[in-house]
Amino acid sequence: MPANKKMIATIDGNEAAAYVAYRVNEVCAIYPITPSSTMAELADEWSAKGIKNIWGNVPDIIEMQSEGGAAGTVHGALQTGSLTTTFTASQGLMLMLPNMYKIAGELTATVFHVAARSLAAQALSIFGDHQDVMAARTTGFAMLASASVQEAHDFALIAQAATLRSRIPFIHFFDGFRTSHEVNKLAMLSDEQIKKMIPDEFVFAHRKRALNPDHPFIRGTAQNPDVYFQGRETVNGFYDRTPGIVQDVMHAFEQMTGRKYELFEYSGAADAKHVIIIMGSGGETVEETAKALNLAGEKTGVIKVRLYRPFSTAHFLDALPATVQSIAVLDRTKESGATGEPMYQDVLATLVEGLQQGRLRSLPHVIGGRYGLSSKEFTPAMVKAVYDELKKPAHSTNGEQQKNHFTIGINDDVTHTSLDYDPAFVLDESEWRQALFFGLGADGTVGANKNSIKIIGENTDLYAQGYFVYDSKKSGARTVSHLRFGPHPIHAPYLISKADFIACHQFNFTEKVEMLDFIKKGGTFLLNSPYDKEEVWSHLPGHVQKAIIEKQLKCYVIDATAVARDTGMSGRINTIMQTCFFALSGVLPKDEAIAQIKQAIQKTYSKKGASVVDQNFKAVDATLAHLYEVTVPAKATSHSEMQSVVPDHAPDFVRNTTAMMLSGHGDDLPVSSMPQDGTYPSGTTRWEKRNISDLVPVWQPDLCIQCGNCAFVCPHSVIRAKFYNSGFLKDAPEGFQSAPINARGFPETKYTLQVYAEDCTGCNLCVEVCPAISLTDRTVKAINMAEKEPILKHAKENITFLKVALEQ
Amino acid sequence: MPANKKMIATIDGNEAAAYVAYRVNEVCAIYPITPSSTMAELADEWSAKGIKNIWGNVPDIIEMQSEGGAAGTVHGALQTGSLTTTFTASQGLMLMLPNMYKIAGELTATVFHVAARSLAAQALSIFGDHQDVMAARTTGFAMLASASVQEAHDFALIAQAATLRSRIPFIHFFDGFRTSHEVNKLAMLSDEQIKKMIPDEFVFAHRKRALNPDHPFIRGTAQNPDVYFQGRETVNGFYDRTPGIVQDVMHAFEQMTGRKYELFEYSGAADAKHVIIIMGSGGETVEETAKALNLAGEKTGVIKVRLYRPFSTAHFLDALPATVQSIAVLDRTKESGATGEPMYQDVLATLVEGLQQGRLRSLPHVIGGRYGLSSKEFTPAMVKAVYDELKKPAHSTNGEQQKNHFTIGINDDVTHTSLDYDPAFVLDESEWRQALFFGLGADGTVGANKNSIKIIGENTDLYAQGYFVYDSKKSGARTVSHLRFGPHPIHAPYLISKADFIACHQFNFTEKVEMLDFIKKGGTFLLNSPYDKEEVWSHLPGHVQKAIIEKQLKCYVIDATAVARDTGMSGRINTIMQTCFFALSGVLPKDEAIAQIKQAIQKTYSKKGASVVDQNFKAVDATLAHLYEVTVPAKATSHSEMQSVVPDHAPDFVRNTTAMMLSGHGDDLPVSSMPQDGTYPSGTTRWEKRNISDLVPVWQPDLCIQCGNCAFVCPHSVIRAKFYNSGFLKDAPEGFQSAPINARGFPETKYTLQVYAEDCTGCNLCVEVCPAISLTDRTVKAINMAEKEPILKHAKENITFLKVALEQ
Repeated sequence: MPANKKMIATIDGNEAAAYVAYRVNEVCAIYPITPSSTMAELADEWSAKGIKNIWGNVPDIIEMQSEGGAAGTVHGALQTGSLTTTFTASQGLMLMLPNMYKIAGELTATVFHVAARSLAAQALSIFGDHQDVMAARTTGFAMLASASVQEAHDFALIAQAATLRSRIPFIHFFDGFRTSHEVNKLAMLSDEQIKKMIPDEFVFAHRKRALNPDHPFIRGTAQNPDVYFQGRETVNGFYDRTPGIVQDVMHAFEQMTGRKYELFEYSGAADAKHVIIIMGSGGETVEETAKALNLAGEKTGVIKVRLYRPFSTAHFLDALPATVQSIAVLDRTKESGATGEPMYQDVLATLVEGLQQGRLRSLPHVIGGRYGLSSKEFTPAMVKAVYDELKKPAHSTNGEQQKNHFTIGINDDVTHTSLDYDPAFVLDESEWRQALFFGLGADGTVGANKNSIKIIGENTDLYAQGYFVYDSKKSGARTVSHLRFGPHPIHAPYLISKADFIACHQFNFTEKVEMLDFIKKGGTFLLNSPYDKEEVWSHLPGHVQKAIIEKQLKCYVIDATAVARDTGMSGRINTIMQTCFFALSGVLPKDEAIAQIKQAIQKTYSKKGASVVDQNFKAVDATLAHLYEVTVPAKATSHSEMQSVVPDHAPDFVRNTTAMMLSGHGDDLPVSSMPQDGTYPSGTTRWEKRNISDLVPVWQPDLCIQCGNCAFVCPHSVIRAKFYNSGFLKDAPEGFQSAPINARGFPETKYTLQVYAEDCTGCNLCVEVCPAISLTDRTVKAINMAEKEPILKHAKENITFLKVALEQ
Repeated sequence: MPANKKMIATIDGNEAAAYVAYRVNEVCAIYPITPSSTMAELADEWSAKGIKNIWGNVPDIIEMQSEGGAAGTVHGALQTGSLTTTFTASQGLMLMLPNMYKIAGELTATVFHVAARSLAAQALSIFGDHQDVMAARTTGFAMLASASVQEAHDFALIAQAATLRSRIPFIHFFDGFRTSHEVNKLAMLSDEQIKKMIPDEFVFAHRKRALNPDHPFIRGTAQNPDVYFQGRETVNGFYDRTPGIVQDVMHAFEQMTGRKYELFEYSGAADAKHVIIIMGSGGETVEETAKALNLAGEKTGVIKVRLYRPFSTAHFLDALPATVQSIAVLDRTKESGATGEPMYQDVLATLVEGLQQGRLRSLPHVIGGRYGLSSKEFTPAMVKAVYDELKKPAHSTNGEQQKNHFTIGINDDVTHTSLDYDPAFVLDESEWRQALFFGLGADGTVGANKNSIKIIGENTDLYAQGYFVYDSKKSGARTVSHLRFGPHPIHAPYLISKADFIACHQFNFTEKVEMLDFIKKGGTFLLNSPYDKEEVWSHLPGHVQKAIIEKQLKCYVIDATAVARDTGMSGRINTIMQTCFFALSGVLPKDEAIAQIKQAIQKTYSKKGASVVDQNFKAVDATLAHLYEVTVPAKATSHSEMQSVVPDHAPDFVRNTTAMMLSGHGDDLPVSSMPQDGTYPSGTTRWEKRNISDLVPVWQPDLCIQCGNCAFVCPHSVIRAKFYNSGFLKDAPEGFQSAPINARGFPETKYTLQVYAEDCTGCNLCVEVCPAISLTDRTVKAINMAEKEPILKHAKENITFLKVALEQ
């Protein structure tokens, strides 16, 4: 349980929501699906630990075989009178739809917590948008949208309080990854506060509606044409009352906590001309941008939609400033073939009804747009572009009128829906300290950063935010941690574009990623380097040297890999790099920081045994002695440049499209470069040489019995076995390994096991099946030391030889 | 295969659609769900018979374990390049949603044929509305709506032609039951015509997009935030082009067949002031009503929506008359919590965009309403009420303005959404012959009527329509067949309110149903009666006698049960009653009619053997000799009235609500009488005394060993075993059966097996397990004959005695 005594925690949106959901339910029926899994996993863990809900019971956690089963379990448990919840997303939510219609039709109080995610269409995506919850808007569930980690926590309670009062089931949702995985500092609700919002009378009423053999009745019958329609209309009053109930609950919540929420929360100029309507985390970005624009004299505003269903026309019209001239409705979803995205349609219907009822004097000009599909970034620069669009005339003869059904955040060069925006537009970030960490998936960087945020969030008055950009390839892919610290709550659900501090946890990233594009002038650059402070400069590529000089960066190195090795941490550099961050960033006094890091180590690793904790302590202590500032020369000396991520002979699609994604420039790909129906050329993986393993296999021909097991067992085709006529060997490069074939009667035939080291993930399977394979360290330093060892030195030539000469 | 040489057929909507679907596909992945099952069953049957598609192949029919599996099979088969379809409805369609997003995202040509049905909410319903297809409108499928049996046939082809051209998958849907089960006369497409609409080039293009190991590529990858959004926008052009493609296909279809269709088909006054927008079969009712109103000087019109997705704003605005002042959008669905039903929202968005683009000068006043949920009747009277509403002022101070979010067809006395309507308003029906047949589920009435329609439709120039009102209890419940015949195509998707001919196939219905409310003055009333033409009058209840006299009905009787018995048909009266219908209705010359009936018998029963055919032939021949006209006295003599369907001591809910449904007045129940959350008192079935079995068990105490097997095996609790002290018998009614208990040491204890004959379905299980039970005929005649037999005469008193005296 995360809450400390002050009821302040630094946790992610999933935990924030699950914390409340667990406390106000008796049954959680679960099936894990990214990005909602954490909620279910935490509930499972808490239940296993015997943690109690607000009534002193340990909730039952029931994992089913799919979300279809989870929804059926929820439906069944609710009919027994149990307070029941589930956590889901995306296709999982779709499998729940049939039960949801029934749960709503039966006026059953429940909250489904959804980390909203894309649906699989032309491709699957595990990332966040509102396609899933929008596919559930037909079910009759109420829909309450959280925009931040604090809201995910608060709205989990507001939804539960409102569902019990209204009997309308709720989807409580927040943006997958952006909110579900953002770590932020928040005020936690106490059990007393939670209890106060869930009076027993509503729980008793829910219980009383349960199916019960002691006073039997039947629910879930069949109805015929004579009465089904009348039956369907009986619920109208419940829906009519729900917005008022939610607003009342929000008022009660405000009185208890001081945190004020409204169904449609307007923010901006009282006399705004241009208003954006938006739901979810993007609302925070719009709000902050509108603030900045208004300070510069503009008249902008935003309505943050919290209660999307039932959509209260009355509350919406109350929230809208009378001065509004143009409105942009931003939907984080796409429904091909519709007259517009769902919230755009809702706003139009509301405005027309306002006009027809005489509540509006005239119809503002309204345009609709899509943004942020599948966690596409949504930045202040994009918000400004939308406001700029709203300033254009409604009609014009030169095409300069407002564009409807636009997209923002991409370059649509096919149907030209996209608005241009100036990425250089940023808000004032001066009160924040921003830090970026480039690491490898599963290398511990993200975990250490989460600890850092907790240390700062929970031990200082500073607010902290952490967001972690993963590739869906997960382990072995690049991860970038985005950390912000500041004196006020941080409402910035977008990535850091200009950091004060950048740490590079993998030296070879200097050749692959343009990290220093994201650092401020005068920032601090920390590099995990096998070269010491004297040597390192000459090993940096030209563009890195230039950026360091031009941006006047403070530059530090540590050989974290060596420190890890020397302190028995065998390659785990996360604690070491974290210690460097605290030493250099100055957010906490050094001694306090070290004490806190050790406390976090104790907490994180104690279950792995005292020796692991001790090794980490030693690593921390050894770190500062090995952290050096680099004296930056006045001039760049290197001529080496960025590595091309794919070779020149790769197919067009790989060079023009795949390579852009591999190098982190996928966002720049225009619509025209994407296949229309999700069809890709096959076999493109082979062009992605990830080079992620420090340890790679080496063949020992004299021990090898040529059974082929190593090649068979390797999941990444790193080891390939070939036989060939010995005549080919005359052209073989230096160090090409070869052995007589282990079979009688073929004296002229040779055998080679060739290692494609760049594809190796270091999984160890080859050495587990065969003693004739050994692992060799080929870290940058090791490779340098081994430059005279032809096996490694000539690996590339050997592979080329094997392919070109032998495979053709 | 139904088509005769003239390519005219009289079939239902399911067969009309499946006929085409089968011919233009290679794979049908199916899972049966009412009311779409017939399509899948027919495809299965045709495939088993080796019937070929237009390319000369027999399609593969693959039945899966659920619609989830069927959708996966469709998706997989499409990816092999096969032309693939499925048939579904309701929850079945919901289980297909995840695959549908992918099929659409991958731009895959396919048509799903949907007999649109309600979704289970407060209760399940197997009947028709648009809730299911509306739940699929988010998937990116195009949606094409048929309004009639002819359209279900034509649009199955238009959808297939359009999907192959556009690469957008289609839902082709029509109203469940109303269209899927309506039998109508239609022009059938020949294979040549079908082929002409599906040129090979589009099939080859579809094939070429298949996954194929000969030229491998990959489809269905994962995409990350960098490119998913761009990928999702690649499809825009395909959707933009689709409405034009569909319209082009419709034009080509018109040139080929003469049948003209438009995306949004306007019908009505060129200068209409009041326009209804509607989709599906209801459009026919609105169109015919608007015609009638315009003849009376009104200015009304209707837009029948055919292509609902992609919704083409341009085509819609083209179709809308410039003179329109007020619009009602009628949705056959309900989405609680939305700002309005889906098509209402679409129309508002379209109008606002028309206004913003300068295509409209001003915004018409728009209201939205719900109708026809779950096959609720939608009649000309209701249409008139909607037009009347549109004539009201948009604003008023006395509440007399147009009501938005209304319902029509029910009495909503809770949230007062419903519009009043005058059921007496009917269209001119003078060119039709209308006939109603009251039978029992599974008694063969419906099958015989279907044959009658075919006989008339396919052998005369008359057009024919048949619709069959079932209870979802099916077997043993009342069925009413609605048959219309006329010189022109019949566009009347609503029930018959004033028939020329009524046949009552069960004499006891005269006491239970107010059949003659539905007959015209001077109409013909045919009664299956155990009493002959002299006797029958005195056995008719007073209200029937009065109606016959007041409406000057011609009244005929036949003892069809006796004719059936005497010709070896043992209770199957359908052929006999059908023969009477032809004899009395005069639609066909008598001899021709009899020849046709015999041909239909040959076709229907030949697989059951020659003897069954012969028996039927004999029954036909014997019929006319037993058909008598009744001489109607000048005055009603009977004082017996309608039976109350439940006893007075039944609980309030049963008397006020259940009884209304049982007596066929469920449509009159207001919203307030329905439980809000689908919760009913349990055990109400016992109040429904269906009395449907002619043969009921009789206990033979002297043979009985008191094993209790008969009571155990009876599925309807008809036989109940009791033991009791013999002292109770002193109050027993006459004929109460009793036996000494079959156990030593209890000389004072008696045993009774009491038969609750009204609950018996005649299933025979009791006599199958025990020779001490015999079956007794208790048809009306038999009961009369047995009036002196106390067992039957006093059955009710016996039951009451058993209950009151012994069970308390």
